[in-house]
Amino acid sequence: MPEEMNPFKIAQSQVDTVAEMLGLDAGLTEFLKNPQRELHVSFPVKMDDGTLKVFKGYRVQHNMARGPTKGGIRFHWDTDIDEVRALSMWMTWKCAVVGIPYGGAKGGVTCNPKEMSQNELEKLTRRFASEISIIMGPDTDIPAPDVYTTPQTMAWIMDTYSMNHGYTVPGVITGKPIPIGGSLGRNEATARGCVITIREACKKIGLELKGATVAVQGYGNAGSIAAYLIHDMGAKVVAVSDSQGGVLNWDGIDPHEAIKFKAETGTVVGFAGTETITNAELLELDVDILIPAALENVITSENAPRIKAKISGEAAN
Amino acid sequence: MPEEMNPFKIAQSQVDTVAEMLGLDAGLTEFLKNPQRELHVSFPVKMDDGTLKVFKGYRVQHNMARGPTKGGIRFHWDTDIDEVRALSMWMTWKCAVVGIPYGGAKGGVTCNPKEMSQNELEKLTRRFASEISIIMGPDTDIPAPDVYTTPQTMAWIMDTYSMNHGYTVPGVITGKPIPIGGSLGRNEATARGCVITIREACKKIGLELKGATVAVQGYGNAGSIAAYLIHDMGAKVVAVSDSQGGVLNWDGIDPHEAIKFKAETGTVVGFAGTETITNAELLELDVDILIPAALENVITSENAPRIKAKISGEAAN
Amino acid sequence: MPEEMNPFKIAQSQVDTVAEMLGLDAGLTEFLKNPQRELHVSFPVKMDDGTLKVFKGYRVQHNMARGPTKGGIRFHWDTDIDEVRALSMWMTWKCAVVGIPYGGAKGGVTCNPKEMSQNELEKLTRRFASEISIIMGPDTDIPAPDVYTTPQTMAWIMDTYSMNHGYTVPGVITGKPIPIGGSLGRNEATARGCVITIREACKKIGLELKGATVAVQGYGNAGSIAAYLIHDMGAKVVAVSDSQGGVLNWDGIDPHEAIKFKAETGTVVGFAGTETITNAELLELDVDILIPAALENVITSENAPRIKAKISGEAAN
Amino acid sequence: MPEEMNPFKIAQSQVDTVAEMLGLDAGLTEFLKNPQRELHVSFPVKMDDGTLKVFKGYRVQHNMARGPTKGGIRFHWDTDIDEVRALSMWMTWKCAVVGIPYGGAKGGVTCNPKEMSQNELEKLTRRFASEISIIMGPDTDIPAPDVYTTPQTMAWIMDTYSMNHGYTVPGVITGKPIPIGGSLGRNEATARGCVITIREACKKIGLELKGATVAVQGYGNAGSIAAYLIHDMGAKVVAVSDSQGGVLNWDGIDPHEAIKFKAETGTVVGFAGTETITNAELLELDVDILIPAALENVITSENAPRIKAKISGEAAN
Amino acid sequence: MPEEMNPFKIAQSQVDTVAEMLGLDAGLTEFLKNPQRELHVSFPVKMDDGTLKVFKGYRVQHNMARGPTKGGIRFHWDTDIDEVRALSMWMTWKCAVVGIPYGGAKGGVTCNPKEMSQNELEKLTRRFASEISIIMGPDTDIPAPDVYTTPQTMAWIMDTYSMNHGYTVPGVITGKPIPIGGSLGRNEATARGCVITIREACKKIGLELKGATVAVQGYGNAGSIAAYLIHDMGAKVVAVSDSQGGVLNWDGIDPHEAIKFKAETGTVVGFAGTETITNAELLELDVDILIPAALENVITSENAPRIKAKISGEAAN
Amino acid sequence: MPEEMNPFKIAQSQVDTVAEMLGLDAGLTEFLKNPQRELHVSFPVKMDDGTLKVFKGYRVQHNMARGPTKGGIRFHWDTDIDEVRALSMWMTWKCAVVGIPYGGAKGGVTCNPKEMSQNELEKLTRRFASEISIIMGPDTDIPAPDVYTTPQTMAWIMDTYSMNHGYTVPGVITGKPIPIGGSLGRNEATARGCVITIREACKKIGLELKGATVAVQGYGNAGSIAAYLIHDMGAKVVAVSDSQGGVLNWDGIDPHEAIKFKAETGTVVGFAGTETITNAELLELDVDILIPAALENVITSENAPRIKAKISGEAAN
Repeated sequence: MPEEMNPFKIAQSQVDTVAEMLGLDAGLTEFLKNPQRELHVSFPVKMDDGTLKVFKGYRVQHNMARGPTKGGIRFHWDTDIDEVRALSMWMTWKCAVVGIPYGGAKGGVTCNPKEMSQNELEKLTRRFASEISIIMGPDTDIPAPDVYTTPQTMAWIMDTYSMNHGYTVPGVITGKPIPIGGSLGRNEATARGCVITIREACKKIGLELKGATVAVQGYGNAGSIAAYLIHDMGAKVVAVSDSQGGVLNWDGIDPHEAIKFKAETGTVVGFAGTETITNAELLELDVDILIPAALENVITSENAPRIKAKISGEAAN
Repeated sequence: MPEEMNPFKIAQSQVDTVAEMLGLDAGLTEFLKNPQRELHVSFPVKMDDGTLKVFKGYRVQHNMARGPTKGGIRFHWDTDIDEVRALSMWMTWKCAVVGIPYGGAKGGVTCNPKEMSQNELEKLTRRFASEISIIMGPDTDIPAPDVYTTPQTMAWIMDTYSMNHGYTVPGVITGKPIPIGGSLGRNEATARGCVITIREACKKIGLELKGATVAVQGYGNAGSIAAYLIHDMGAKVVAVSDSQGGVLNWDGIDPHEAIKFKAETGTVVGFAGTETITNAELLELDVDILIPAALENVITSENAPRIKAKISGEAAN
Repeated sequence: MPEEMNPFKIAQSQVDTVAEMLGLDAGLTEFLKNPQRELHVSFPVKMDDGTLKVFKGYRVQHNMARGPTKGGIRFHWDTDIDEVRALSMWMTWKCAVVGIPYGGAKGGVTCNPKEMSQNELEKLTRRFASEISIIMGPDTDIPAPDVYTTPQTMAWIMDTYSMNHGYTVPGVITGKPIPIGGSLGRNEATARGCVITIREACKKIGLELKGATVAVQGYGNAGSIAAYLIHDMGAKVVAVSDSQGGVLNWDGIDPHEAIKFKAETGTVVGFAGTETITNAELLELDVDILIPAALENVITSENAPRIKAKISGEAAN
Repeated sequence: MPEEMNPFKIAQSQVDTVAEMLGLDAGLTEFLKNPQRELHVSFPVKMDDGTLKVFKGYRVQHNMARGPTKGGIRFHWDTDIDEVRALSMWMTWKCAVVGIPYGGAKGGVTCNPKEMSQNELEKLTRRFASEISIIMGPDTDIPAPDVYTTPQTMAWIMDTYSMNHGYTVPGVITGKPIPIGGSLGRNEATARGCVITIREACKKIGLELKGATVAVQGYGNAGSIAAYLIHDMGAKVVAVSDSQGGVLNWDGIDPHEAIKFKAETGTVVGFAGTETITNAELLELDVDILIPAALENVITSENAPRIKAKISGEAAN
Repeated sequence: MPEEMNPFKIAQSQVDTVAEMLGLDAGLTEFLKNPQRELHVSFPVKMDDGTLKVFKGYRVQHNMARGPTKGGIRFHWDTDIDEVRALSMWMTWKCAVVGIPYGGAKGGVTCNPKEMSQNELEKLTRRFASEISIIMGPDTDIPAPDVYTTPQTMAWIMDTYSMNHGYTVPGVITGKPIPIGGSLGRNEATARGCVITIREACKKIGLELKGATVAVQGYGNAGSIAAYLIHDMGAKVVAVSDSQGGVLNWDGIDPHEAIKFKAETGTVVGFAGTETITNAELLELDVDILIPAALENVITSENAPRIKAKISGEAAN
Repeated sequence: MPEEMNPFKIAQSQVDTVAEMLGLDAGLTEFLKNPQRELHVSFPVKMDDGTLKVFKGYRVQHNMARGPTKGGIRFHWDTDIDEVRALSMWMTWKCAVVGIPYGGAKGGVTCNPKEMSQNELEKLTRRFASEISIIMGPDTDIPAPDVYTTPQTMAWIMDTYSMNHGYTVPGVITGKPIPIGGSLGRNEATARGCVITIREACKKIGLELKGATVAVQGYGNAGSIAAYLIHDMGAKVVAVSDSQGGVLNWDGIDPHEAIKFKAETGTVVGFAGTETITNAELLELDVDILIPAALENVITSENAPRIKAKISGEAAN
């Protein structure tokens, strides 16, 4: 990975930019540019074939000044410490800008969950949870699901932590399954946050949300839910896309129907009444609102000038 | 630093070599090649000039299978995580080969103690101690002095830890000053271990220690004490050196006198009754016993064939 | 006690019945049929006459998957481990069906509180509280009053636990006296829960609660309060009873007046304007709503066909 | 200090008076007259000139029956143990009369904050916080600012406690700066409480607050805020004062303007449109409402008969 | 099992017998007859075939007055609570009579280790260890191996406990493998204790151990080691046996050779130079010393009169 | 009490004297002159007559720099905070001069144990133990018996502390009864220390202990044991005394017989073969060794010049 794409370097340079704007003290800036605490662990897991495999995991607490730290745990083959550092720092800013009393943290295990059995994933999760439990807790640091970790993963973490403590500690993680204390609405939360932000932005610039045209790039959890939430608020979704391409209908697409269609066919491409477009074309449609909800870095200095949407509400991480 | 000089890579390749000899399981070897737990911290210290400076520190616990981990803390401008990792691993092996029930650990702070005031060093030490106290304790992980840390440093650590716990915890560190529970003999311990090893090696190869000729390279804490201990056992120290050069007297040098001489003049060079030699010459003298007690890596594939000593007892780290 | 009356066997067979309906996995069913954790203690109490008496007590935590466990502590001469096991299991179901994040627990001491002095009861309570405090706590397991234990008993438990911890921990028990943090409304809570359930059931079957006729069997804490609460909602209480018999007035009985009458005379029998009936007759009156609030097992396969009430709202345990 | 001015003796005699009214048990009265727990500490601080100075501090928990204890920490040259005892007892009564689930505590350090640098104050505060942290905590005892301690002092205490515990514990103190979790409105809270009490007292005695005349003695934090709050409710503030004297205007004084005036000139004396009066005269003005907000003990048996205000709402501690 | 064979009833009646001899207070006797604390747990284990199986386990702490409790954990299909209660009580007496500062405890899991895989046994052990860890610890209660539990079992317990605590806690169990801190000599300890007792008894009755004749019933761990230890002290072992029968040679049997013979053939029967006898005959041989080291209850009121040995040193549990 | 007799003032002035000799830093001197930590508690005890009585108790930890603090707990009607402060300071010096790794502490409860029943004493002790348990523990602060507290008192403290922690903690106190872990020899320890000091002093001044004449003032635990210990070493005890007077026999007194005599008659006066003397005369006898073992302050500037003994070995506190 080239230096300029290293997420931690990017995150640090963002701090530099802002610190200069704010006239922040150099020492304080340096402090904010580095995580306060990182725990790196190496731990063995007995795989289904009987061999012992050693995994590396991280839990980074970027800043805990405002309260317990908060942030997801991801399982991914490319996860490395710099990615986790960057994400933990961004969690600090996210919590701070919305004024909730949490600091930022992030965790990750370098592994390929796609090639592991449920049994192996459970063992890896439980062992990793034990390893980081020395800095985790309801008043300390509270993980959540992230890339390739699910409510089931959170349940394993909660159970491991609880068993170690001798009683159930539901507050040690968020994103757990609803029957053991998870929150209603969490599934829609990312998309809802995005759409509410758009709604407020509309008010600010005097755009009538009712009837406004919307293009949504990406039709996974974030994109498809954002699509139907903004549709249900009265906006007109005219284009959606997924990794196989996009579809356009200036008369409007019913996002609920599109979800069903994609569930059956595996893609939104081919949805009734639409014409096919590329993901690149979708970004540059002449719509009121653009919701990029697929990969990061889709808007670049190259295509930015051609984007026509008045509001771009990002749902991609 | 070239890859082949990275101490962690060296330490890992040592494990590979031994694991192959022992026919160790691949998974277990991988486990032993990586520290179980690393804590990385960034913390601010208010310097004497009022500015805030951010320091990076580490505490690495390589393996805790055999008991609480044990290992020094160093303050050095070149200390980095890979050095600390390697040193923690070597502590595991050291404890295991002599059969004491401890695992291996090491800690370090990247800083320049030579350019810091006592006040700044105290602040840095106390803050670092607070930061790592979450994984430190008499039953958990017990630091000790190392490069540029002293009994005073240990006293600060012990006091910080004790104040945080509300009562005095002498067992949290070793190497503390004697009045607050330090061990007698610790000052001579490194040299004494080296000399005892030489004494046992003499028995093994049938060399009479009494009267055996000895050359000692380096005349700091390790070298000068090793010199007088082996002298007091009856051996004849014929050459000693320091960074300014060496001195030779085939009739024997009194190490106690040499210590006084160096205390006054700053070097052993010029000690009464000796001729001056180079450090390189000293290594190749025709003595029975050679004690390298200066820098590491002084014996190389180049000069090794020319070394004539029957026993080389290393006191350098 | 015959096997079929063993409450734990009954509770276990209830699980079997339901598990079959739900098609639950056999292993999971077995898990739910047994308490996760039981603490049995034997402890001495110095009685007022100076002798040492040894008591057996239990705290059973049936299932803690949904959160801290919750359940009363009873002092009774017949309390045994199987009773406590059954009650702890029922607490799990009670908490789960109303969706509060608690698991089920129960405790008991085999003793005869009727024959013990206040001093002896205090000592027994405090010692038992100390013994079970290793598994008790606001985040762990929270007792409450039950048979022959009172708010005073809870205050002793809270004080013992608090003194052991060095600070006041009001959350360790519920049902404490109001001045030290007890909840308003707790006294009426059982009856109110029963009456609210009846109110909702009325809505479901289209019965107008206002003016509906009600018979209440039992006029202790549960029955008398249920009577006046439903009266205050507009229903017409036509019959009430206690262990000495029942009274009937088709024009309605004022439950508040009946409470005063019973407080003076010791029974509701003889209350002005009523005719006397038996407890058995009361159950079979042609009323809209029947509230059995005396002993358990009053409605049997024998008399069930003759019960005419449209709604039976049970307030007996 | 004469015995009769010893605040602890005063506080104890108040209990005696009330206990006699209530017919309290003698043992219980004795218990309430003495703090349950006092921690006295002596601790050294390295001053800016390099000398070591030893300070005495106290934390007194008068009564913890109703929950965790609550009370400020003061830094003052005259603070002694009897003052702290009295203040801790008054905190118990204050919490109890308004029905919040806290007991009473108070702390103090005998020192002269006016003669200490920020650096010295920070060191003193952090060391004192460490010393008392064995009995302090969100569930145990929660300090707050008091005489010569500020939100900054609380932030140091919170940071020290948090660093010792390894994670941020915002609940360990109140009165912290808003960015790290302090409460909005705290600055005005004392004055607002006073004014709300006056408002309710007005209702009770049938005095119309709108248009009522008000005299305020003292124009610091408590007095000046009380003045503008009651002004904003419609009352007419006719006299205010500070240590340099008072001002009177029967047509009313705008307290907001008076604050600005005092900020510029250092006193209210000379405020436009007013005549100058003494503090003693102010107390005896023929106003509806008097707010003594300066020192304690200004109303004595001597001047009490001459006070004409219908309501005296005390804002002085 | 008939009441008279219930081990707990037997243990309790033993206390009654002794209490009467000692004239113990009735309350104290009752206290000693019952375990102070019992933890009963039910816990699920996922078996190799994917099914969930629920196991019942116990940890009983009979008496902790003299220090932390100590006692083995057994895995056996017949283990029930009364057996564990009896064994815990016997541990109290054993520790007390030899004056070591421990109380008595015992644990057990009802399971059939013979039918379980290593994987299943590890899972069961780790889960059981987690369940009882709330009352286990180096200062609290320290398990050891017992029937069907081994040093490997102890290593799993130690690892589980250590992982839950975040650092290695070797003191939580005894009987662990030597590389992780086990004690040298533990394997021989039971037999050595038996033989030392015999040696002391010989001194007491004036029997010369050198040359004394010895019969050993049972040739497992206890019997075979007792045989060679007493042989090495100079006694003449003339008869040994196992479940398949016994062998006799009045000229003496070399126990070391007998061990090798049994290792090859599976029995001592047929050992060179011996004649075959029955286990019953062995007990009644005209030897100086008899060591019953097989099952319990082999010496009964029936055969006792026919036993000719001057000393019977029991090595069977 | 006049200021000059206040033990804390005396202790502080002793520090001043020594500090001046040592040239100690003023700040450090001030630190050493004040206890680091004092816990003052007020607690109620229900007396046998049903009334509630409130007691004041103290635990003072003078200095913990060298390790856990150590010191007795006294129950006395005259015990006040200044006495406890002084005694805690002296404990620091005592531990330091003999080089054991403990700091100094002391505790006391102001009460009259002579007028309290065993039941009341047990309640007082247990409650006081609970109150101070927040700063007490085997690694923290370890009480011991002192004036009017006994091994039984220590057993109550140990049991209370242990019950609060859920397991037996023998290390929390010393001076406990031997069956629960007390040390053999403790009863004689004070006297033995005194006599050993005398023995060493004899060597120093060249006095032959064998045959040396000894006078012992006081015949309680310290005096009578010192008498027989020095007698058993060969010295000749010629005079002993108690509160009723002294006895003298220049041919020697058998201290063992004198103990029996006093046990029967209540005094040593009248012991066979002795003449009666006063306590004042005893001090001035022409003996080699004088052992004052009664009250403190018996040797004054007034009688000091008349004392003829070559060695005065003090056993009084």
